[in-house]
Parts: sequence; C-alpha cells; structure tokens
Amino acid sequence: MGRWEPNARERLEQAALELFQERGYAQTTVQEIAARAGLTERTFFRYFADKREVLFWGAGTLQKLIVDAIADAPEGTPPLDAVAAGLEAAATMLQPRREHARARHALILADADLRERELHKLASLASAMADALRGRGVADLAAVLTAEAGIAVFKVAFERWIELTKSRELSRHIRASLDELKAVIDGVGQTKKNE
Amino acid sequence: MGRWEPNARERLEQAALELFQERGYAQTTVQEIAARAGLTERTFFRYFADKREVLFWGAGTLQKLIVDAIADAPEGTPPLDAVAAGLEAAATMLQPRREHARARHALILADADLRERELHKLASLASAMADALRGRGVADLAAVLTAEAGIAVFKVAFERWIELTKSRELSRHIRASLDELKAVIDGVGQTKKNE
Repeated sequence: MGRWEPNARERLEQAALELFQERGYAQTTVQEIAARAGLTERTFFRYFADKREVLFWGAGTLQKLIVDAIADAPEGTPPLDAVAAGLEAAATMLQPRREHARARHALILADADLRERELHKLASLASAMADALRGRGVADLAAVLTAEAGIAVFKVAFERWIELTKSRELSRHIRASLDELKAVIDGVGQTKKNE
Repeated sequence: MGRWEPNARERLEQAALELFQERGYAQTTVQEIAARAGLTERTFFRYFADKREVLFWGAGTLQKLIVDAIADAPEGTPPLDAVAAGLEAAATMLQPRREHARARHALILADADLRERELHKLASLASAMADALRGRGVADLAAVLTAEAGIAVFKVAFERWIELTKSRELSRHIRASLDELKAVIDGVGQTKKNE
C-alpha cells in the first residue's frame, strides 16, 4: 500500500469496465474493482473520487482540449470553424480508444443515473465552449448557438463512430455531420427565397 | 374528499410555486402544498404523481404539440422549417404563461436534481422530434441534427424570452435565434469558399 503501482489508473479502469459489463454498473463495488486490478481500495481512491468517476474522469481532459483549441484558433476564424477545430482535437484524443469509448457508452445508456450524469457533462461542455467563443469576441447569441450546434454535431458523429461497423475515423464523422448540418440549414434559406 | 374541486390543478400548481420560491423546492412537502391550496393530499396525488411533477407535467403536452406540428407540416417542407413550425406551436402555448415559465426556470436552475430532470426532458424531446422527422422521410443523420439544432434554438430563445426585461414575444426570439444559427453556419460556408 502506498507504493507506486505501474499503470494503476489504466488497470483500475480496465477492471472496472470488465466488471460493469459482466455484472452491471450498480452491482459492482470499488472493492471488487480494486481486487480485479490486483490493487487496494486505497489505491483506487488515489485516482478516482468514486465508482462513477472511472467513467467520467476523461471528460475534464476532453473539455480542456476542446476549449483550448477554440481559444487558440487564428484570429478571424469564424465561430463554427473554431468549434470544428475543438472537435477535431477531441477526435484525436478519442480515436485510439474506440473500444473503450464504445463499452463506456453502452454502460451509460443502460443506467439512468449515468445517463443524467452524461447529459450534465455535455451541458457543461456546451457552456465552456460558449465561454471560449465569447473570449474570442463572439457575441453572446452566436456563441451559445454555435456551441450548441457543435455539441449536436459531436454527439451525432460520436454515436455513428462507435455504432457503425466500418472503421471510419471519428474526425471524418465530425466533418460529415458538420456538412449535413450546413445542408439542413441551407434547405431553410432556399425555402425562404421561394416564398 | 373525492368531490370535484374547481381549478384544483391550477391552485395546486400556484401553491407549489409560491412555496418553492419561499422555502426552496427540497424544503417543501406535498402536505404543505395541498394545505396552501386549500385541498387535500389525496387531491394532489390525483393530479400529480409526486412533488416534482408539478414542475414537469406540462413537458408532455409541449412535446406532443411540437411533434404534431412537425408531422403535420405540408409535404415537401424542409426539415428545419418543420421543426420551426413545431417550435412556433410551443411558443403559442407558452406565451401567456411567461411569469410561470420564469419562476419555474429559476427553481430548476437552483436544484441539481431538477436540472438533471430538465436535461433529460430536453433529450427526450430531441429524440421525439427526430422520430417525427424520420416519419416525414427525412434521412437519419439529417433528422437527428435538425432536431438537435431545433432544441438549441429553443433553449436560447426561451432563456432570452424570460430573462430580457423588454417583452418581446417568444416566437420572435425563436425566429431571431434561427436566423442567428443560419448566419453562424453561413460563416463556415464562406470560409471554405475562400480557402
């Protein structure tokens, strides 16, 4: 106890995912996760505040990546392009972890508490993205709408990435969803012209 | 007990909002709500499954209005225009209840459980809107993105409607948000052309 354990976080995360899939999230204890990983409960709590955090600790890292990419986009970049750069950064982080992302997503869909937690994390992300856009001088209404549109694109792209069997990259799904969103919006413009 | 009480639902709702604002949502009991309304607990439970439902019973009605308007839009209506028709229908229902909507929104923001519940209701609404679009023959990706874009527009418009002191109508906020979303998306299109 107390000594350094190689790859402790990864081992705990892997053990937790296995147990959640075998027994269900609610039926798994921290003690069981630690035992499966060959570590102590004390080590578990050095890395995660509670059982739920095994599934959500990456959200903060992801949010920081996205927000930093939005802030760092070259001056004059249109708001949705800055958001697209943020989503690309997220895709780069997630791409090597597709199997993990898929397993995590299935667990979240199966548990009401985890679903609510995920919705809350997405709402926080949207809010942080809007703040980053405001920090670039984007007006409030445009900042909020661009952030929400970005979240919609990301959600749709993410679900297609983990659900579809052919192994298209997440970043390509993001670009396809952005293009589809543009097509949808252009449909409205056209109708108005024909009135 | 058991006899018909005039305007029981409205009286219970009004009493609940008053008490939630005076004492906080968590500190208010169903017994106190019924007493304030001059009714029995039994009458309360004839209208609401629990305390929380006083704040959420309208969500089902709102969702049905929006989904029906999407389904009933004339053939050939572009997806985002069908969604706009749905949001207009919601605005017509909400417009006379601005003070209620404002009080309800403040209560929800102040309580974590209520915030999660509200996020969940919005996610259900997005899902029902996407289903209604698929029912019109809209392809899956376009349906999901249009529904999510509609939710973003509605959230932003709703918050502006209840926060801003000048009494612009909700439907005008919805149209302004839709126009802003279009402008944001067009910004991207322009950048791509200039590459």
